[in-house]
Amino acid sequence: MLQQWKPMEKPQEEELSIRLKAAREKLQEQQMKIKEHKLPVLVLVEGWGTAGKGNVIGQLIKNIDPRFFKVASMAAPTEEERRKPFLYRHFVNIPEAGKFSFLDSGWMNEVMRARLYGEIGDEEYAARIESIKMFERQLTDNGYLVVKLFLHIGKKEQEKRIKQLSGEKDTKWRVSKNDRWQNEHYDACVKVFSSYMKDTNTPSAPWYIIDAKSKKWAELQALEFLTEGIDVALANNAMAVPILQNVFPMEKMPLLSEIDLNKSLEVDVYEKELKELQQRLGELHNRLYRKKVPVIIAYEGWDAAGKGGNIKRITGALDPRGYEVHPIASPEPHEKARHYLWRFWTRLPKTGHIAIFDRTWYGRVMVERLEGFCSENDWKRAFNEINEFEKELHDWGAVIIKFWVQIDKDTQLERFTDRQNTPGKQWKITDEDWRNREKWDLYEEAVNEMIQKTSTTYAPWHILESVDKKYARIKALKIVIEELEKVL
Amino acid sequence: MLQQWKPMEKPQEEELSIRLKAAREKLQEQQMKIKEHKLPVLVLVEGWGTAGKGNVIGQLIKNIDPRFFKVASMAAPTEEERRKPFLYRHFVNIPEAGKFSFLDSGWMNEVMRARLYGEIGDEEYAARIESIKMFERQLTDNGYLVVKLFLHIGKKEQEKRIKQLSGEKDTKWRVSKNDRWQNEHYDACVKVFSSYMKDTNTPSAPWYIIDAKSKKWAELQALEFLTEGIDVALANNAMAVPILQNVFPMEKMPLLSEIDLNKSLEVDVYEKELKELQQRLGELHNRLYRKKVPVIIAYEGWDAAGKGGNIKRITGALDPRGYEVHPIASPEPHEKARHYLWRFWTRLPKTGHIAIFDRTWYGRVMVERLEGFCSENDWKRAFNEINEFEKELHDWGAVIIKFWVQIDKDTQLERFTDRQNTPGKQWKITDEDWRNREKWDLYEEAVNEMIQKTSTTYAPWHILESVDKKYARIKALKIVIEELEKVL
Repeated sequence: MLQQWKPMEKPQEEELSIRLKAAREKLQEQQMKIKEHKLPVLVLVEGWGTAGKGNVIGQLIKNIDPRFFKVASMAAPTEEERRKPFLYRHFVNIPEAGKFSFLDSGWMNEVMRARLYGEIGDEEYAARIESIKMFERQLTDNGYLVVKLFLHIGKKEQEKRIKQLSGEKDTKWRVSKNDRWQNEHYDACVKVFSSYMKDTNTPSAPWYIIDAKSKKWAELQALEFLTEGIDVALANNAMAVPILQNVFPMEKMPLLSEIDLNKSLEVDVYEKELKELQQRLGELHNRLYRKKVPVIIAYEGWDAAGKGGNIKRITGALDPRGYEVHPIASPEPHEKARHYLWRFWTRLPKTGHIAIFDRTWYGRVMVERLEGFCSENDWKRAFNEINEFEKELHDWGAVIIKFWVQIDKDTQLERFTDRQNTPGKQWKITDEDWRNREKWDLYEEAVNEMIQKTSTTYAPWHILESVDKKYARIKALKIVIEELEKVL
Repeated sequence: MLQQWKPMEKPQEEELSIRLKAAREKLQEQQMKIKEHKLPVLVLVEGWGTAGKGNVIGQLIKNIDPRFFKVASMAAPTEEERRKPFLYRHFVNIPEAGKFSFLDSGWMNEVMRARLYGEIGDEEYAARIESIKMFERQLTDNGYLVVKLFLHIGKKEQEKRIKQLSGEKDTKWRVSKNDRWQNEHYDACVKVFSSYMKDTNTPSAPWYIIDAKSKKWAELQALEFLTEGIDVALANNAMAVPILQNVFPMEKMPLLSEIDLNKSLEVDVYEKELKELQQRLGELHNRLYRKKVPVIIAYEGWDAAGKGGNIKRITGALDPRGYEVHPIASPEPHEKARHYLWRFWTRLPKTGHIAIFDRTWYGRVMVERLEGFCSENDWKRAFNEINEFEKELHDWGAVIIKFWVQIDKDTQLERFTDRQNTPGKQWKITDEDWRNREKWDLYEEAVNEMIQKTSTTYAPWHILESVDKKYARIKALKIVIEELEKVL
């Protein structure tokens, strides 16, 4: 793209000032509308070293109330970030609904460096491009405005700036090794940048190239592209987008009604096996810690199916320094204000750690679907979005184990009644549980669709028959052990 | 995409029948809504030879009122079509608002053959991909639903079908050379198809792969993808989409107010030059006919600026068998029901011919903009869409000459008054002309923006100072001659 692009003519000083004033005022006016419409705005400022990315962001935010934006400067990934999937640090920086995030260079810059320095080969590069396209599409599909700006300067201009900045004691620090490297390899960079921009130049998140030779002019272009993008986004109200076909390999799964729940274990067999399996799991936990394998265990199931007790039997075997249990309730306001997967991205384990989710991202296609917390287009899209999410985790190297804890309706009633009548257990049963129970059939239909559509070969569902909780616990332990053994 | 895709499990016969019935009924119900919402639906049915494209379309249309759809079978381009730009025969087949077009293989198949048979090299292939992405984006941006289906069968299944069909006298004709070729080069085809589908798998027009091993099952998948796509499209109401940045090289152009209109020619000089230039143009016309260069001359300008007389001086020099003048009035209902560029695509000249447009596609950013015949998002998007359209024509080899015929407001008043007072000229002046005149300043602003934003180096505007019509005519002739000489 950079190769064919020609800069617009810079307007005369007077016109420039008039347009700048108008654009600044416009951005100020748009703020309130963004808040009203709950529009999240992500502004990616990419470009050449010394092109003035920081300056452009500095000028843009002058016109925005500080409560409504965040600026994130992307330095090299920290040790912690390196132990997360590639998209992690970018996903966690997405704005809340009604607010701006400005990224002083984002995922483009990160991938470009890795590519230009030869740290990633063709295959990994292609995978990153696919991840990025998926990420940006998931954002725009879910109502985000994604504005991608690239600040462009010529080779000579960059050289001049590097010299100028290096010459002064106060500005010397602003020239990085990478800036110099870029200038020395300018033509190679143009090629790689262009091909990246062409690959990621989608209809819903297109690129805008900015002539960054003059500060004021660069600011004006950025303001005009941004305000125009906001205008378009504000004009759209809860847009529906095409539902993508599943292209991931699937496992054949039974319907819930086909599951034999008459499985049980004698107490003595249970206790013996429990002890052996927990010991084995403990050993494996050490090994995966050393081998830096991340593990994600996801629990879903009927209320009172026995998720809590099942989880306890897993964690009982683990070193507390190496795992975390995330109980997932309704989202907090700051979570509700973001992409529904955000609160799971932020809770991902580091490599070598285990994260156990007590209820999960599958809320989107169960409670959110059935209670109308999201639109039909939203939950229909979610099957694919979740398969994509788990594919990212799998490609990162994670072991993903998903449990559906299954009981029948009568068993649930027994357990509810027992909870109600046992003083120490009353906290465990709420009116909501009874209300959900009334929707059993609708939930069953939703769960069946979920299991059919998200049992990918890399992250299949495992059904735990839990009328006999002992049976379910032993089965869960065995599956966890088996899955870990595959990678250790 | 084909490589990673795995077929869904085919449902049992009973479930299949139930779902088929439901999907057929749904499509029938959607018809009326499509009509009401004026949604145009383009269904591309691509796939392997003998995969049953015709059959799937046959089944789909059984459920649609014949007044609401057209089926186009894409054979090899005709001689006539070969003399038009690559996208021509695809653009002319787009549906009207409220109707379906089914393409029994479309642009994918055409490009795939050319690619696989080695008729186009890497560069031309890359250009085609860009054209196709642009085309599909222009459709979805302008409110079209584009459903892209690919009917997939395995190598062995294809081989079996070819054998079976060839074995029977009645079906022998259905196996083409290309079908056999595909089967012999199956793996190479998979690679090329996959890469094509990946390149064109955009968020707004994604691909859907259909397991075409069984007829009924293929029909069901097609119906379900189609009806789901329609549901999503119906949920959206006049969606706004991002305005793309101009990335085409531009020429610097003056504002209308900066144009010196005091240019004139003496009658005798005019007559002498007219004669010489027309003779020269006549010669060039012969040469471009033989060299098969297509020429597009576009006239825009103020009412009474002298477009008609100017055009006459051009056509006076031309062989009537080699040109056509297209007077462009408000669109007919069947034109209004399609993409605004459709009526210009259908009027493109063949190679070696000249098409002269008296008013043009620029109506989108003048009258349609000012009279509110399209949305703000529509006309703002149009600058880029038009630059893309003209780029397609330029890449095809066309010479594009665009004239803006300029007069001042007083001159227009004089001419209007003269027309009003001269019995033979009264037909030339209407109430609308007077109404437009009242909006002179708004038009001037729109025209200035248009000229600034669409003067690409490959199709720049030429200003004809037409207070002295003689001057404007000679200037137009000289420009046409000059532009033709560049390519002859």
